[in-house]
Amino acid sequence: MKIEINHKRLLNNIQTLAKIGMNEGGGIDRAFGSQADIEAREWLMNYWKLELGLETRIDPIANMWIEWEGTEQVNPIVIGSHHDTVPDGGKYDGALGVLLATEILQTLIENQVHLIHPLSVVSFTGEEPNPFNVSTLGSKVVSGRLLKKDLLKQKHRDTDESLGLAIRRVGGDISQLENALLTDNQVSGFLECHIEQGKRLEQKNLPVATVSGITGIHREIITIYGEANHAGTTMMYERKDAMLGAAEVALAIEEVAKDFKDVLVATIGFFEIEPNEANIIPGKAKMILDLRTYYKELEVKALTLIKDKVRTIENNRKVKIVQEVILDQPPIPMHDEVIKSVNAGIYDINEEPIELVSMAGHDAANMARVTKSGMIFLKSMDGKSHCKEEYSTDEDIRKVGNAMLSAVFHLDKELE
Amino acid sequence: MKIEINHKRLLNNIQTLAKIGMNEGGGIDRAFGSQADIEAREWLMNYWKLELGLETRIDPIANMWIEWEGTEQVNPIVIGSHHDTVPDGGKYDGALGVLLATEILQTLIENQVHLIHPLSVVSFTGEEPNPFNVSTLGSKVVSGRLLKKDLLKQKHRDTDESLGLAIRRVGGDISQLENALLTDNQVSGFLECHIEQGKRLEQKNLPVATVSGITGIHREIITIYGEANHAGTTMMYERKDAMLGAAEVALAIEEVAKDFKDVLVATIGFFEIEPNEANIIPGKAKMILDLRTYYKELEVKALTLIKDKVRTIENNRKVKIVQEVILDQPPIPMHDEVIKSVNAGIYDINEEPIELVSMAGHDAANMARVTKSGMIFLKSMDGKSHCKEEYSTDEDIRKVGNAMLSAVFHLDKELE
Repeated sequence: MKIEINHKRLLNNIQTLAKIGMNEGGGIDRAFGSQADIEAREWLMNYWKLELGLETRIDPIANMWIEWEGTEQVNPIVIGSHHDTVPDGGKYDGALGVLLATEILQTLIENQVHLIHPLSVVSFTGEEPNPFNVSTLGSKVVSGRLLKKDLLKQKHRDTDESLGLAIRRVGGDISQLENALLTDNQVSGFLECHIEQGKRLEQKNLPVATVSGITGIHREIITIYGEANHAGTTMMYERKDAMLGAAEVALAIEEVAKDFKDVLVATIGFFEIEPNEANIIPGKAKMILDLRTYYKELEVKALTLIKDKVRTIENNRKVKIVQEVILDQPPIPMHDEVIKSVNAGIYDINEEPIELVSMAGHDAANMARVTKSGMIFLKSMDGKSHCKEEYSTDEDIRKVGNAMLSAVFHLDKELE
Repeated sequence: MKIEINHKRLLNNIQTLAKIGMNEGGGIDRAFGSQADIEAREWLMNYWKLELGLETRIDPIANMWIEWEGTEQVNPIVIGSHHDTVPDGGKYDGALGVLLATEILQTLIENQVHLIHPLSVVSFTGEEPNPFNVSTLGSKVVSGRLLKKDLLKQKHRDTDESLGLAIRRVGGDISQLENALLTDNQVSGFLECHIEQGKRLEQKNLPVATVSGITGIHREIITIYGEANHAGTTMMYERKDAMLGAAEVALAIEEVAKDFKDVLVATIGFFEIEPNEANIIPGKAKMILDLRTYYKELEVKALTLIKDKVRTIENNRKVKIVQEVILDQPPIPMHDEVIKSVNAGIYDINEEPIELVSMAGHDAANMARVTKSGMIFLKSMDGKSHCKEEYSTDEDIRKVGNAMLSAVFHLDKELE
C-alpha cells in the first residue's frame, strides 16, 4: 500500500496559519514573543489536539511537541521546523516545515500506520533573528548550544524585557531549562523540510533536493578609523575619509567573493558612519562582514585575500582598519543515513535526487549536534524568501510532501 | 597716532568665554538654545555694559548689538561674528570674531576715537548647524534670507520644541521678526574675523588673509535602490546590492573631485542603508553629497561628470539611482571696497596681503545680501576646527587684531 499526504488539507493549513500575523500589505509579522506568535501557537496546539487527537507538550524553552507511538520502545524520529517569521515575512519559511510534519503524522494516524520508531513533530521557538539577538533559539537550547547562563543575559534591544519573561509569555519556563536538553540518543533522527530560499532548484527545473550540509558562517566587525574634519575647508588630498576607506573594503570583499563563483558568498549588510553629518568628513565607519561557505578551506583562503586587500587600503588611505571576528560557525554536514533516506524518498516520487548545500542556517544545524539530522528543500519561486513574495507552487508542495513522507519510511528502516 | 588693540585683554576674554559650556574633555558645548548659550549671552552683554559702558540691544531673532557713535549721521559699519559652537567645539570659531570686534570697539572708546561711521558690534544667533536644522540663523533673518513663515515651521528634531520658543528662551521675540530685518542701506558695511579652518595659511606661513569670496555649496541626496535579499542564499552574481552601488558612487565622486585639485571639494558625510541587518543584502542606500567650489562653472562640470559615472554604475549594477538637489547655495563674492580695506589693514601690520576663498559658510555670506561685506582670516594651527584642538597662536591673534583695527579705519574712509 502506498499512502500519500492530503495535499489540499496541507495547502489549506498553510493559508490558515498565514492569516495569523498577516499585515495589510500581505506580509506576515509573527516574530518570537509577539501576539501573533502566541496566537499561532494556540492554533497549532488546538489543531494537534482536535484534528490529530494527540496530547501536546511545551518544553521549557517553549518548543511545542506531539508524538505518535511506534511499534517498538525506541527513541523517536523527530520532524518539524519553526512557526515564527521575520518582519514582513512569507507564508512558507518555517510554517511549511511544521505543517508538512503535521500532515505526515495526520496521514499516518488516518491510515493507522505505526512506524517502528515513535514519530514526533516539533515547532521550534524563535528560529528567525529577533530583538533578543538569538536566532534558532529553541533548537539551540535543546541541542545544548545555548546554556542557561548565557540565555539569562539576553534582553530585548528596545524594551529591555528579559528573554526569560518573553519565554514565559509564549508558554515556556526557563527555570526548568535543563529539562529541555536532548541528551545523546534521546532522539533517533531529525528531518526538516524547508524552502530553498535560493534559485538553484529553479535553475535546474527540479522541485526538491536533499540537503548535504549547512554552510559555515563567519562574521566580523570591520571598523575604519579616519579623521573627522570640515567638509569645506579640508582639501581632497588632506583627507582621511573613513567612509571612502570602508567603500573600498566593501568592494574589495565583493571582488574576492565573486571569484569563488557560487560556493561562497560575502555580504556587508550592516554599515554605519560617524558623525554622519552632511558637512563633516566621516571619521569612523563600522560594518559587518557575513561570509558563508560550506568549505572551510575556501573560507580561510577568502579571508586571507580580504585581509591582504584591507592592508593595502589601510596603507593607501592612511586610515586604521580593525577586524574583529564575532561569529565562527562551522559548516555542518547532514548525516549520511538521513541523506540516503531523503534521496530514496525523492526517487520514490520519480524525481531526480540531487544534493545541495544550504546557504542559510536552520534548526537542523543545531539538531545535528544531538542526533542524525537532515533536510529536504523545496523550490522557491524566483528564489524569494523573507518577504511576502515568497512562494512555492501547490504541485511542488504536493511533491515535497510525498517525498518527505516516503523519506520518513526509509529513515524508520534505516535507523537502528 | 597709531593705536593698537590690547591683545592680552583679548586673549583673556577668549579664555573666559571658552569656560562657558566647556565639557570635561576640554571641548565646548555651546549650541544655540543651550544653557551655555544663555550664559554666554549674559556674560557678553554684561561685559559690553560694564567694560564698554554701552547700551546693549537684542533684536527679535536674538542677535546682540552694541553701537559706538560716529562723527556723522550715517549708517553704521558692523563688525562681529557668532558666540555659539558645534558640539564639542573649539575656543575660536565664532567667539574670536565677536571678542575681537568687542576689543576693537573697546580700544576706540579708550582712545576716544570716533570714526566717521557709527561702529556696531554684533554677535549673531545660532550660526552653527543645530537641531532645528537652520545654520547662520541670526544673519539669515536679518538679511531676509529666512522669512517668518519658514522659520515658524522649524522644530527641534528630538524634542519637537518650536524654534520660536527656543528664540524666546535666549532673549528674542519672533512675533516682532519684521523689525530684525536690515533693509538696504541700513548698514554701511560688514566685516567679520574668523579662523581659516583650513591649512592654506599654515602652508604659506602667513598669519592672516583677506577673504575674496565664500564658496558655493551644492547638496544632493543620492538614493540607490537595489534588492534586499538573503545574505546566504543569494549568489554573488544574482545580487542587486544597494550598499555596493553606493560605495562605487562615493568613490567615483572622490575621483571627480580630486581632479579639480584644491578649488573644489566633495564629501559623502551622511550615509545610511536599509534594512541594515548583517544577514540581509542591503536593498536601499541613501547618502548626501556636499560639493563646494567658488567657481560655478566648475560645479556644473563636476556635477556632469558625476552624473555620467552614476549612470554607468546604475547600468552595471542594475540598481536605480535617484539624485535630488536639496541645497544650491551660490558662491558669494566679498565686496571690493571691503577687500581693499582688509588688504590695506594687513599691509599696515607689515604682512603680505593675500586673498583666499572661504570653503566654509559664514554669517558674512548672508550679510553680503544687504551690505558691502568682507572677512579677514586668521591662521588655524594644523587646519583644525570644530574640535577642542582648534588653536591659533597669541601672536597671530595680536596680528589679526591690529590688521582688522586698521582695516576698520580704511573701511571708514573708503565707504560713503
